[in-house]
Amino acid sequence: QARRVRSIPPTVFSEMSALAVRTGAINLGQGFPDVDGPSSVIAAAIKALESGANQYAPGLGVPALREAIARHQHRHYGIELDPDREVVVTTGCTEGIAAALLGLVDPGDEVVVLEPFYDSYLAMIEMCGGSRRPVTLRAPDFRLDPADLRRAVGPRTRAILLNSPHNPTGTVLTRDELRAVADVAIEHDLIVITDEVYEHLVFDSNEHVPLATLPGMRERTLTLSSAGKSYSFTGWKVGWATGPVDLVAAVMAAKQWLTFTSGSPLQPAVAHALDHEPDFPAALAEDLQARRDLLVAGLAGAGLTARVPEGTYFATTDIRHLGWEDGRAFCLALPERAGVVAIPNQAFYDDHEEGRHLVRWAFCKQPSLIGEGVSRLAAAD
Amino acid sequence: QARRVRSIPPTVFSEMSALAVRTGAINLGQGFPDVDGPSSVIAAAIKALESGANQYAPGLGVPALREAIARHQHRHYGIELDPDREVVVTTGCTEGIAAALLGLVDPGDEVVVLEPFYDSYLAMIEMCGGSRRPVTLRAPDFRLDPADLRRAVGPRTRAILLNSPHNPTGTVLTRDELRAVADVAIEHDLIVITDEVYEHLVFDSNEHVPLATLPGMRERTLTLSSAGKSYSFTGWKVGWATGPVDLVAAVMAAKQWLTFTSGSPLQPAVAHALDHEPDFPAALAEDLQARRDLLVAGLAGAGLTARVPEGTYFATTDIRHLGWEDGRAFCLALPERAGVVAIPNQAFYDDHEEGRHLVRWAFCKQPSLIGEGVSRLAAAD
Ligand SMILES: CSCCC(=O)C(=O)O
Ligand SMILES: CSCCC(=O)C(=O)O
Repeated sequence: QARRVRSIPPTVFSEMSALAVRTGAINLGQGFPDVDGPSSVIAAAIKALESGANQYAPGLGVPALREAIARHQHRHYGIELDPDREVVVTTGCTEGIAAALLGLVDPGDEVVVLEPFYDSYLAMIEMCGGSRRPVTLRAPDFRLDPADLRRAVGPRTRAILLNSPHNPTGTVLTRDELRAVADVAIEHDLIVITDEVYEHLVFDSNEHVPLATLPGMRERTLTLSSAGKSYSFTGWKVGWATGPVDLVAAVMAAKQWLTFTSGSPLQPAVAHALDHEPDFPAALAEDLQARRDLLVAGLAGAGLTARVPEGTYFATTDIRHLGWEDGRAFCLALPERAGVVAIPNQAFYDDHEEGRHLVRWAFCKQPSLIGEGVSRLAAAD
Repeated sequence: QARRVRSIPPTVFSEMSALAVRTGAINLGQGFPDVDGPSSVIAAAIKALESGANQYAPGLGVPALREAIARHQHRHYGIELDPDREVVVTTGCTEGIAAALLGLVDPGDEVVVLEPFYDSYLAMIEMCGGSRRPVTLRAPDFRLDPADLRRAVGPRTRAILLNSPHNPTGTVLTRDELRAVADVAIEHDLIVITDEVYEHLVFDSNEHVPLATLPGMRERTLTLSSAGKSYSFTGWKVGWATGPVDLVAAVMAAKQWLTFTSGSPLQPAVAHALDHEPDFPAALAEDLQARRDLLVAGLAGAGLTARVPEGTYFATTDIRHLGWEDGRAFCLALPERAGVVAIPNQAFYDDHEEGRHLVRWAFCKQPSLIGEGVSRLAAAD
């Protein structure tokens, strides 16, 4: 294997989902819903399949989808985008991340990234020959400390890679926290790549604020998102990158060689979702909030106090409450002990001490499954 | 933009398809059929969409598809594969190429590649920091000269990147030519990455021989293919890499960070195609052969002699027959002159002199469209 991949372990999500399949355990690990999105969106995909949307889509994505993405950004956030130059469709947000980093980060560049980090951030920064400068959201409240952010930026910093709503912590960055990011980015003339796939999945009175809406940020922010989480079609892998022409061009410059294009019959269906099912994501968020509460209460009943997440699919717990220390050992034993799979957050930390005892649980599942999962946990010894 | 993408021009296929859309010209450029594949395969995709295949597929691909790919390789070529360790599903062959090179090629490594080369080969070798050592298939007959191949291999050679049936020339490497490749690979202990997406689209008495079937090659050959060309669903982007465990693991090591997975509802449909429409590709090849003949005859009528291609979607002509010299200028003028789009082969050569006057025409189109295209050419001045 090439050096760029040799030292990177396989994604923890594959490992833990394979464990769930092998053991028949309830999968509260990898984040995917067990109920599909709107049937009108499935119907739109069927129509696309039947009406010939089966050959290569343009590299940038089908025009109807790019236009729908532009309308979405305008409707929700007041952001104006030229669908022909400021929007590119990607194979899920994962390809958006890969292409953005390959398109923008040179060997030796530093990328400032929130820790715990989604595992592909780390892998792709490595593959680009860049190095990461983590800014840790520290337990138990997982907030961003602007002083930590300032300390992480140096002369070699090329970009900040942000993620809000934040996986795995469930933190939704506040306007004040985002303002701190914007200040640093503007002061040091940095670009920010912001993964906002959970943009619609926020709870209570929390609000998702796209970084691109802050003064001075439109021209330096590359925003990544996807239909997977907002519309409960994680397997379709239709995502997008939006932002200023030069940043979108950088994504395209790399992406055209990674997949060229993908999902021709799914792209029109996602356009349909954005245009004709505008209320689905908010209803999903409401559902998820109830499931979050069910999970958090159930975890508490099993002796695990979680911080109540403000968004995403996930809640994080400290397993020391149960007398465990090592999250990976805990998760590997869990199928046998309780018939449940969860994710050790360790994989998302450089500072393994910080993440060692943290475990992430997904609540994007039917209430009955969450209920069964937490009763199994409570019954485990 | 990062240095690794800065010097690479955008893919010529996007450029020329955009030109076709803009001018309303007949697109004989980018290779995609204008008739979709089997309706039973569409029905299988619909069934998958309706029965919940809408969340993340496993990173390796859905088991049913990996098993169908293994059966396909066995049925056609007698190759035995372990579907759990020797098969990985990719987002089309393009992602297979990207992941194979990222997973195997270190900066400074050399990759021997047939020239003219498919443009993503070149781009991805660059992005890996590798360098290419072209072996030119020389006009007018576009055969592989084993002496040229031997001269291209040196101490820094990491891999041979092969493509047969070959795009853009339409050459199908003979068993003797492949044996020469195998000899060199074995002698220098090289791996070979072989793009066989046109494996079923061969004409007359030509035969596609997978390199992996040659003695000593099974253990050093990574074979790439896809459903796009064999089943006329180029927009689905469901491809695969097969071969020894370590090479497939290298693809997976990179691929998991590029897209993680893709096309969940399309993967079961491709499994259906491989298992239940085994005769479609051969029937398609028969159709394509007739279209090839129509195109080649029509081009001749317009003053352009093409070598009769042995496989693929494409025929190449020498525009000096019409008094032109520069293929790019010819192709840029063509929509205006004749209402047709074709591809300048220049983009596929390091040796621009060699490719300057060559132009590629796609015949994966309905006979009426090919007929209209060539009469427009004949009528152009
Ligand atoms: C791309 S697999 C991981 C799914 C996900 O977003 C998560 O579980 O964190
Ligand atoms: C991936 S776009 C190019 C399609 C194709 O294979 C070709 O036209 O050569």
